[in-house]
Amino acid sequence: MNTESNRLKNVEESSTLAMAALARKYKSKGIDVISLSLGEPDFKTPKHICDGAKEAIDSGKYFSYPPVSGYNDLKEAISLKFKNENNLNYPAKNIIVSNGVKHSITNIMFSLLNKGDEVIVFAPFWVSYAAIIKLADGLPVFIDSTIENDFKPTTKQLKNAITNKTKAIIFSSPCNPTGTVFTREDLESYREILINYPDIFIISDEIYEHINFTKEHCSIGSLDGMQEKTITMNGFSKAFAMTGWRVGYIGAPDNIIKAINKMQGQTTSANCSIAQRAGLKALEIGNKCAIEMREQYLNRRNIVYNILKDINGLKTNLPKGAFYFFPDISHFLGLKTEKGDEIKSANDLSLYLLEYGKISLVPGEDFGAPNCIRLSYAASEKDLIEAIKRLSSSLNKLT
Amino acid sequence: MNTESNRLKNVEESSTLAMAALARKYKSKGIDVISLSLGEPDFKTPKHICDGAKEAIDSGKYFSYPPVSGYNDLKEAISLKFKNENNLNYPAKNIIVSNGVKHSITNIMFSLLNKGDEVIVFAPFWVSYAAIIKLADGLPVFIDSTIENDFKPTTKQLKNAITNKTKAIIFSSPCNPTGTVFTREDLESYREILINYPDIFIISDEIYEHINFTKEHCSIGSLDGMQEKTITMNGFSKAFAMTGWRVGYIGAPDNIIKAINKMQGQTTSANCSIAQRAGLKALEIGNKCAIEMREQYLNRRNIVYNILKDINGLKTNLPKGAFYFFPDISHFLGLKTEKGDEIKSANDLSLYLLEYGKISLVPGEDFGAPNCIRLSYAASEKDLIEAIKRLSSSLNKLT
Repeated sequence: MNTESNRLKNVEESSTLAMAALARKYKSKGIDVISLSLGEPDFKTPKHICDGAKEAIDSGKYFSYPPVSGYNDLKEAISLKFKNENNLNYPAKNIIVSNGVKHSITNIMFSLLNKGDEVIVFAPFWVSYAAIIKLADGLPVFIDSTIENDFKPTTKQLKNAITNKTKAIIFSSPCNPTGTVFTREDLESYREILINYPDIFIISDEIYEHINFTKEHCSIGSLDGMQEKTITMNGFSKAFAMTGWRVGYIGAPDNIIKAINKMQGQTTSANCSIAQRAGLKALEIGNKCAIEMREQYLNRRNIVYNILKDINGLKTNLPKGAFYFFPDISHFLGLKTEKGDEIKSANDLSLYLLEYGKISLVPGEDFGAPNCIRLSYAASEKDLIEAIKRLSSSLNKLT
Repeated sequence: MNTESNRLKNVEESSTLAMAALARKYKSKGIDVISLSLGEPDFKTPKHICDGAKEAIDSGKYFSYPPVSGYNDLKEAISLKFKNENNLNYPAKNIIVSNGVKHSITNIMFSLLNKGDEVIVFAPFWVSYAAIIKLADGLPVFIDSTIENDFKPTTKQLKNAITNKTKAIIFSSPCNPTGTVFTREDLESYREILINYPDIFIISDEIYEHINFTKEHCSIGSLDGMQEKTITMNGFSKAFAMTGWRVGYIGAPDNIIKAINKMQGQTTSANCSIAQRAGLKALEIGNKCAIEMREQYLNRRNIVYNILKDINGLKTNLPKGAFYFFPDISHFLGLKTEKGDEIKSANDLSLYLLEYGKISLVPGEDFGAPNCIRLSYAASEKDLIEAIKRLSSSLNKLT
C-alpha cells in the first residue's frame, strides 16, 4: 500500500529536528548531552508578553476563529513595525499572520509555484527552504558560497542562475545557518540585477533581524523599486523568545496576498488567537527585551569565537548575526575515530561528536554545505564552554 | 505576472468565511445583521481550560518548540480518550496534533495523494474537503444524498464510486453541514464494502462527536478490521468551544503517521504550545462542560425546528447532531424579489436574505448541495427566534 505521495518522497525528514530527537533520546537515558543543535533562544518569553496572553484569555474576547489572515490590530502593529524599523510600506491588508515563518514559506511556495518553476536559493540555506520548494513541485536552484567569502553568493552567480523558469529567490539575513548579515551594499548589488526581472519575486526571511551585531539591518524590500516584488517574512520566535507560540508573518504585494489568503483560508485557517495577542503585546511594548537578549548573544558569540578559532583544523569565521557558528570541517574528512571508523561526511562527524563528545550539532548536508557543521550558541555560557571543550577534545582524537 | 499556482486557481475562497466577512462588513456599518453563518460555538472556552493555559504560561516550561507531532502527555491523553470514548486503539505514537482539523486534513491529503488519485466525498460535505483534495492534485468524487434519505449516501452509491484510482473516502459524523449522525448500522453497511479494499483509507471527521443528540457516537475505525485503514480526526474546537485556539488531532495507522510527521515537520512544525496545554487540560477535566453545552444546543435545535418546519416551501429535517439545519430551498428557485430579481440559486437566496432579511446564512453550493442553505444555531435563543422570523418573512415576500 502506497502511503506516501511522490511530493513527500522527494524530501527528507527535517534533520535539525531529527538530530534534536536523537539528543533527547540520549538525555532521557540520563546521558549528559549538551545540545547546540536547535535553532531557538534559551531565554524564556518575556513576562509582559506572557501577561498579554493571559489578559487576552481573561478578556474572553479571543476564543472564536480569528480572521484568516490574523487580527486586524495585530496586522496594523506589524504594518507600523515594517514602516518604522524596515522602511517598508505594507499596509495592514498586505500582512498575513501564520503558524510560524515555516508556515509562511509553505503558503508562499504552494501559492506561487507550478511544476518545474525554479526558486534560486542562496546556499548555505535553512533546511526547510529546499524541502518546501520541492513539496510544492518547484525546483530549488542553489547558488553556493563558502566561508572564504563570508557565505555570500556573488552577483555573477545570481545572474547566471536566472532562467525563464525562475519564479523567486529566497535567502535569510541574518542567515541561518551561517550567521552572515547581508549589508545594504550587498543587497544593492543584488537589486541591480533583480530589478531587471519584473516576474521574479524576492522572498526575504528576516526572522533573525534583531539578533544582528552590525550597525544596520537592511530589508531588501526597502531598496528602490523592490517592495512591489518582495515578500518580507518575519515573526516573534527569535527576537522575543516565542518559538513555541508559533507566530510568523509576511508583508507582500497585493496579488501575492490575495493568493496566500486563499491558500491559508482553505488549508489551515488562522493560527492560535491567544498567541496572536501575545505577539501584539510584544510589538506594543517594543524591542527593549530583544536588545537585552541580543547583548547576551553577542557576549556568547565572542566567548565561543575565542575558543573556536584556536581549534586546530576548524575553519571558523566571525558571524555577524543570528546565533550560529558554521565552521568548515573539511580538514577532518577522511580522518579516523579511535574505533577506526572513517569520518566520511559532516553527518558522520556530527554523529561521532554526539556519541563520543556528548554534544549535539547539526551536520551541514541539509543546509547545502556538506563541509560544514552548525553550532547554535543559544545556550548558557557554562554549557557553551563545556561543549566547545568537548568538541575540541573529540576533534583532537581523530587521526 | 502569474502569482497564483494552478493548484490554487482550481479552488475558490472558502465561502463560509466569505459570507461571514460580508456580514462583518454590514455589522461594522452599524447594520443589525444576525449571523448564522459560521461554524463555531457561541459559548466561551470553559474557565478550567483557560486556567490550564495560564498555568502553562506561568510554569515557564512551554515557550520552546513543541515536538512536531505534539507534546507526548497530550498525545497520551488523546490516546486514552480514543480508547475510552471511541473504542479505538491508537497509541500516543500514532497521534499527531495540528493547527485545527482543517490543518490535519491538509496534512493527510498532501501526504497521501498523487495527481489523479480519487477521494470519495460524501455529499453534502464540509467545503474544505473538496478544496484541499484539489490543492493536493487529487480528484474529489462526490456521492450525493438528499434530505429525503437524511443525507446518507447508499451503499450502492459507495460501491459504484470506487475505482482503481480510489485512495480514500472522507465524511463527517455528526455531519457539517447537514447535522446527520451516521449510526452504527449505517457505518457497518459501509464497512462491509470498504473492508474488501485494503488500499482505500477511511478519513473519519468526528469533530462534532460531542454535539450528538442520539444515544451513540460510533467511530467507523472501531468496527471490525477497520482501524488499520482508518484515520480518525477530532479536536477541541466544537466540544470545548475552543475554535480560536486551533487544536485538532488525528489517530492513524503507522505508515500514515510516518508520512504526516514528515509533512508537518517540513511545512509548519507543531501548533501553539500553550494551546496544546489548554487542550490537555480539557481532556484531563473531562466532558461535563461539553455535555452542558450539548444540552443547550439540543434546546435550541428544538426551538428552531418548531418554527422552521412550518415555513411554507422550506423542506426541513430534524438534525441529530452538530449545530446546523440544512433545509432544502428548491421551492424558492425561480421566484422573484420585490425588486424583480430572480432567485436563481441558493447563493442568490443567501445574498437576498442578507441584504433584505439582515440574516447571514451559507448557501449550499460549496457544500455540494445547490438546493440547500446552511443555518447554524450556535447563537442565542433570542437571536435565533428573531433570525427565523426574518427568514420566514423574507421568504414570504418572494413571489
